[in-house]
Amino acid sequence: MKNLLVAQSGGPTAAINATLAGVCKKAFISGKVDKIYGGINGIKGILSKNIKEIGPMLSSVESMSMLVHTPAAALGTCRYKLDNKPETFQKIIEIFREFEIAYFVYIGGNDSMDTVNKLSIYCAENGIKDIQIMGAPKTIDNDLCVTDHTPGFGTAAKYIGITMAEVMLDVRVYDSKQAVIVETMGRNTGWLAASACLSGLNGGPTPHLIYLPEVPFDDEVFIADVKAIYETSSYAVIVVSEGVKDANGTYLCEKETTKGTDSFGHKFLSGAGKYLEQLISTHIGCKVRTIDFSLMQRCSGHIASLCDLEESMMLGEAALDRALNGISGEMPYIERLTSEPYTFRIGTTSVSNIANFEKKVPIEWLNDKKNNVNEKMLEYLKPLVQGEANVKYKNGIPQHIKLY
Amino acid sequence: MKNLLVAQSGGPTAAINATLAGVCKKAFISGKVDKIYGGINGIKGILSKNIKEIGPMLSSVESMSMLVHTPAAALGTCRYKLDNKPETFQKIIEIFREFEIAYFVYIGGNDSMDTVNKLSIYCAENGIKDIQIMGAPKTIDNDLCVTDHTPGFGTAAKYIGITMAEVMLDVRVYDSKQAVIVETMGRNTGWLAASACLSGLNGGPTPHLIYLPEVPFDDEVFIADVKAIYETSSYAVIVVSEGVKDANGTYLCEKETTKGTDSFGHKFLSGAGKYLEQLISTHIGCKVRTIDFSLMQRCSGHIASLCDLEESMMLGEAALDRALNGISGEMPYIERLTSEPYTFRIGTTSVSNIANFEKKVPIEWLNDKKNNVNEKMLEYLKPLVQGEANVKYKNGIPQHIKLY
Repeated sequence: MKNLLVAQSGGPTAAINATLAGVCKKAFISGKVDKIYGGINGIKGILSKNIKEIGPMLSSVESMSMLVHTPAAALGTCRYKLDNKPETFQKIIEIFREFEIAYFVYIGGNDSMDTVNKLSIYCAENGIKDIQIMGAPKTIDNDLCVTDHTPGFGTAAKYIGITMAEVMLDVRVYDSKQAVIVETMGRNTGWLAASACLSGLNGGPTPHLIYLPEVPFDDEVFIADVKAIYETSSYAVIVVSEGVKDANGTYLCEKETTKGTDSFGHKFLSGAGKYLEQLISTHIGCKVRTIDFSLMQRCSGHIASLCDLEESMMLGEAALDRALNGISGEMPYIERLTSEPYTFRIGTTSVSNIANFEKKVPIEWLNDKKNNVNEKMLEYLKPLVQGEANVKYKNGIPQHIKLY
Repeated sequence: MKNLLVAQSGGPTAAINATLAGVCKKAFISGKVDKIYGGINGIKGILSKNIKEIGPMLSSVESMSMLVHTPAAALGTCRYKLDNKPETFQKIIEIFREFEIAYFVYIGGNDSMDTVNKLSIYCAENGIKDIQIMGAPKTIDNDLCVTDHTPGFGTAAKYIGITMAEVMLDVRVYDSKQAVIVETMGRNTGWLAASACLSGLNGGPTPHLIYLPEVPFDDEVFIADVKAIYETSSYAVIVVSEGVKDANGTYLCEKETTKGTDSFGHKFLSGAGKYLEQLISTHIGCKVRTIDFSLMQRCSGHIASLCDLEESMMLGEAALDRALNGISGEMPYIERLTSEPYTFRIGTTSVSNIANFEKKVPIEWLNDKKNNVNEKMLEYLKPLVQGEANVKYKNGIPQHIKLY
């Protein structure tokens, strides 16, 4: 028997199941895979043999389509960094042998690629040639190196762009002075915050200010920048990444938490947006509201980018394809050839080029004052949000699949 | 000349422009209206003659369709309660005379119907018979009396139901103990919080607990209820309306604000969700995250309910139709005839039955413990979220219209 094991890891996205569907589709059509197993809750679940046969549940076009359009990780996930003990790797291989696993595809971000890296090195060093281990990329953060962008990012960017466009319309309706602050995810990189500029793709308004973790934040400059907005507008819309830091490298959210305590004596953990809200309240004094896009930015499958879902699926197919061809320790990625028209090809790279590295937003894609993005960012983002997913609704609500 | 003036008031919704489109459509096809004027920023703008001819901008099918699918108030809005001074009404009528207004339709919630009421009484008392003043309902809060439900509510409910379904999938992926709290709008009524149950419409998971303003909140009972969830689930999902109060009538959000201060010495204004978060942190101690659906629940036009948009448009048509027939001081409403299949008729009622009244959630639609809804609520909600709006995308982002 030559069985496939596939698992998901790290923060969920609205496209990670499209990659899973791609892996399974390739398994079905290759004729080289006997059984498809899903590892529940990633490598952590695999270590406790939480492994389930999923092939039969995905044998119809309907179930496969539903999987593509179901957000979050249909196999569950984990945040678990493999230790370096040989007995851990030995245990994993023993479990693989028990389930007759010949191919293991692990879908995740840079931590997950670290797992793929270690496991494939262990196999190589121990002469294990009949188990191929491949990674498949995933993260809304878009912070993986080598690949032009990551699966899941396009949908998150589309959610942020559309929601931003709608929020801009909502903010505009009153004629009184106000500010709205939108906080996005992105602990170390500003790709998600930058995506807010997509609200302007059809000529609509864009946020006045966008702050990324790549640029040190200065309170005084911020207050001056906001005051300048009110010279021509009754409202100010400001986007901030959760990971923005000051010149000393202190996260804005941590600055706040050291000061405030709640009724139970806890320090407040409110975030970068709330920090900006307080700066505006104190120094400008108008009505101000903070919106956190929270989990919605990573799970809004109903608004998925068709481009993202298609690419995510292709990368899953490519990962298993390489494994079927005897390749191990690699990850397929997207190489952009042209932006307009958008063309790309899928390559593969050693996971050692991915694991533990991080791709920042290029500073040349920001405006001169570094408080917003420029047209280079929009050119980069535009192809990634094209097309609307064909979500199947029933009773007014999208249909989702449950694998475990 | 017999001109129409239409304006919008109160908090924006994703369907208020469909009602505007209905008013304009009726004006076009009736042949009885010469010019269509929009009052910018509601009655407040009208009082300062911020009035714009909008008919020519809406003369194509494309622009009308775009208006239907543009969220927020395309004419702007205001929160402005008319004073009772005769000179104010006199001024409004003078402005109406200047623009040769024969029909005025005001789209809004119960405060706006108060304006319609006062203005129509003024006209009746002063023998002004050639200006008809009609209201058209709007509010995501669904708290207007007489009408089965309000335009805008169905779309907000659909947003909350779909987002809830997606968030439930996202929360489920980890196997560690955690809690997610979702805060919805609804200062005095729990219709929006209750809509979270729509996540289960296709058999998917629903929130474990839903708290409405109609039921006094008790800390001890809450903590016991949450602890009970963890006996069978690794995660707890709790929905709370912003307006939930304790047995003394104190808002949960106010309870918190009296205690915490931030780094600038301000009292925290965090909300009911944050209050529950702290209760869980203190008494249960697991990871907990609060999500606020914020402006998104009222401006998510991309996910609008087709039923809601169609009804909203019909109510706009009906409002102008009655005005054209010489009726004043009334508001069209929806009378539900049957739930399955869903059938309804449109009636009209005096705005005096609407202004300053409020429709609460019936307690019989809650479960025995009053910490969730029962099947009667789901039966009520289900028809309102049916159908997906035909939003026109360009470059991956919906197209929106701008009228001023």
